[in-house]
Amino acid sequence: MTNDILSPDADAPYTPLIPAHSWAIIDSTLREGEQFARGNFKTGDKIEIARALDAFGVEFIEVTTPMVSQQTQADIRQLTELGLNAKILTHVRCHMDDVQRAVDTGVDGLDLLFGTSSFLREFSHGKNIGQIIEAAQEVIGWIKTNRPDLQIRFSAEDTFRSEEADLMAVYAAVSKLGVHRVGLADTVGVATPRQVYTLVREVRKVIHDGCGIEFHGHNDTGCAISNAYEAVEAGATHIDTTILGIGERNGITPLGGFLARMFTFDPQGLTEKYNLELLPELDRMIARMVDLPIPWNNYLTGEFAYNHKAGMHLKAIYLNPGAYEAIPPGVFGVGRRIQAASKVTGKHAIGHRARELGLHYGEDALRRVTDHIKALAEHNELDDAHLEQVLREWVSA
Amino acid sequence: MTNDILSPDADAPYTPLIPAHSWAIIDSTLREGEQFARGNFKTGDKIEIARALDAFGVEFIEVTTPMVSQQTQADIRQLTELGLNAKILTHVRCHMDDVQRAVDTGVDGLDLLFGTSSFLREFSHGKNIGQIIEAAQEVIGWIKTNRPDLQIRFSAEDTFRSEEADLMAVYAAVSKLGVHRVGLADTVGVATPRQVYTLVREVRKVIHDGCGIEFHGHNDTGCAISNAYEAVEAGATHIDTTILGIGERNGITPLGGFLARMFTFDPQGLTEKYNLELLPELDRMIARMVDLPIPWNNYLTGEFAYNHKAGMHLKAIYLNPGAYEAIPPGVFGVGRRIQAASKVTGKHAIGHRARELGLHYGEDALRRVTDHIKALAEHNELDDAHLEQVLREWVSA
Repeated sequence: MTNDILSPDADAPYTPLIPAHSWAIIDSTLREGEQFARGNFKTGDKIEIARALDAFGVEFIEVTTPMVSQQTQADIRQLTELGLNAKILTHVRCHMDDVQRAVDTGVDGLDLLFGTSSFLREFSHGKNIGQIIEAAQEVIGWIKTNRPDLQIRFSAEDTFRSEEADLMAVYAAVSKLGVHRVGLADTVGVATPRQVYTLVREVRKVIHDGCGIEFHGHNDTGCAISNAYEAVEAGATHIDTTILGIGERNGITPLGGFLARMFTFDPQGLTEKYNLELLPELDRMIARMVDLPIPWNNYLTGEFAYNHKAGMHLKAIYLNPGAYEAIPPGVFGVGRRIQAASKVTGKHAIGHRARELGLHYGEDALRRVTDHIKALAEHNELDDAHLEQVLREWVSA
Repeated sequence: MTNDILSPDADAPYTPLIPAHSWAIIDSTLREGEQFARGNFKTGDKIEIARALDAFGVEFIEVTTPMVSQQTQADIRQLTELGLNAKILTHVRCHMDDVQRAVDTGVDGLDLLFGTSSFLREFSHGKNIGQIIEAAQEVIGWIKTNRPDLQIRFSAEDTFRSEEADLMAVYAAVSKLGVHRVGLADTVGVATPRQVYTLVREVRKVIHDGCGIEFHGHNDTGCAISNAYEAVEAGATHIDTTILGIGERNGITPLGGFLARMFTFDPQGLTEKYNLELLPELDRMIARMVDLPIPWNNYLTGEFAYNHKAGMHLKAIYLNPGAYEAIPPGVFGVGRRIQAASKVTGKHAIGHRARELGLHYGEDALRRVTDHIKALAEHNELDDAHLEQVLREWVSA
């Protein structure tokens, strides 16, 4: 296709050019997800979520700051003692109080954040860029000296409404202090894909070679998945997700949707890295805990994600599902729905269903029964049983 | 920010650099939306939807092909006789049968489609590129001669899995035939934002100056909004949407989500062009007709789209909602929710609520009552009445 980074060969549009091993998931269901209106996970929920994410294979699990309460602090300790393969990180303000409490919980790393946009500098913490860098020096210096075993990320909150010069100064400074990752956060969900791509490339130039780049994107304007993808394309190494995308407001990059996106570039790598067929269980688990349904338009696991209806689509789907499916549903543990009886169906779909029932229609009869079914379906929903009844009646007519 | 096309000045990140008058909406709720599992609109529904879209201000309304049935054909005629400002288009295969039936319905234009990917050429219609161009010549030639008043669009179905050379040959040919728009369709939802951007720029080079470019994007991998946006950034003039994004599988670019995205670039232009405050009515209307709720994570109109919860967010929101809101909710007729009582709240939010109730806490007392509320909320949901009760009890304690 046109973008030779993505698919130089049109006959193999899914050629793995963004290898799945070049990036990792930081699942933040237990942190960002707790900022969702209905996200208030109890100790038992947290353990269930952490084990499920670990079984799925995410590389990192981010949890709410221990500053919230004694209970939250105790919960983090319990999570770190589960012996999971996933590394546990906690998300804390760049304050010594927060950091000192966090290092005692047994976490593998600290995700520090500091608002860098003029909005947050004025209306949140009131600090200028020089003061932000000073605070980072104090906190990061302390961690490097006292707990050199901990991974450190430093994120500029509201990155995409910050001035580029400010950002570069902050990222360069924290890179010199030896952080393991810098974070770009689209806190209010305004970044655009090409903007994310460009900024990640710029940030790469001012940080040390081994330094990772993490992207965290809200979905207010519908770009959370594509921005995460463009971040990876530009060289980001870590993507924040939550199950079903839950988070502040309408949330962030959803785990399932992001993996749907990345699957198209390296199906094999993704399948090796994660137990993708567990996704429906993860989505159902969170839906149950927040007491809401899986949205009917959800990626992969939504009720209609693989519903095929138009006659032209059905005709091709029978021959090769790839004609109208970007991702085989079975890979993610879900099924396909063929909606053969509707006003937009066609004779290929009706003929196919008839043959499945052992009924044989000639060309003219097939056209007539198809028109009849379309007209019926236009006025009332036609279920499978009704369709079968019509097909059986008309074959002998 | 970093991308100087978008926001050269960090102090004005929403500078209108993509003017709202440079693109138009083709709402396809009455066509693509009928390919949604639950989309089966009756005559009365169609009239209600068309009138609502027209009141909202969309420029074009696309309706299902009259080939579906006599009823559908009669319905189109009724829609074209409503005297709407919006132009009515119908979506038909590039076949003379379809076109001859369509031109008699009174529509303002025909949206022709033809699959150009190897998938669809092999598994759908079996034609090669030369045959596709020949069919286009016959059909477009006939329309230009017999109905020169009609707008004509020619779309290459499954554009993003088609070979670039094939696409350019087809687009150049139909442009020479005098179509008003060419269409790029991400039929299976695999395109990426930079790929869309690049292809739109390439297509622009092979079509005539007055020729529009339309983008139609499915959302299987979560890029339907961002791809539509990148298409516009690259020079596309028409974007297909549906209300709530309904369509085949999990649908296409949603009207509301797309307008949320575009609002950030030209708030004033968008407000002048559309009656944005009617969006909640549109979303509710379609939810009712397909008998499903508005997804709780929906753009703008979802239940939690403007729910603010974390203490750090609340602190800033009281001072300036723009600190954590990309778009003022009132513009789209929705409200903000402040969730003051949760385990992740903070003393600014609690102090703010106390002052609203006329209660005055000193610094220490505020810290204590905040910790108490956080601990309570950690174990049970705390509603507003309960929060008020605690604040009243503790102020005298």
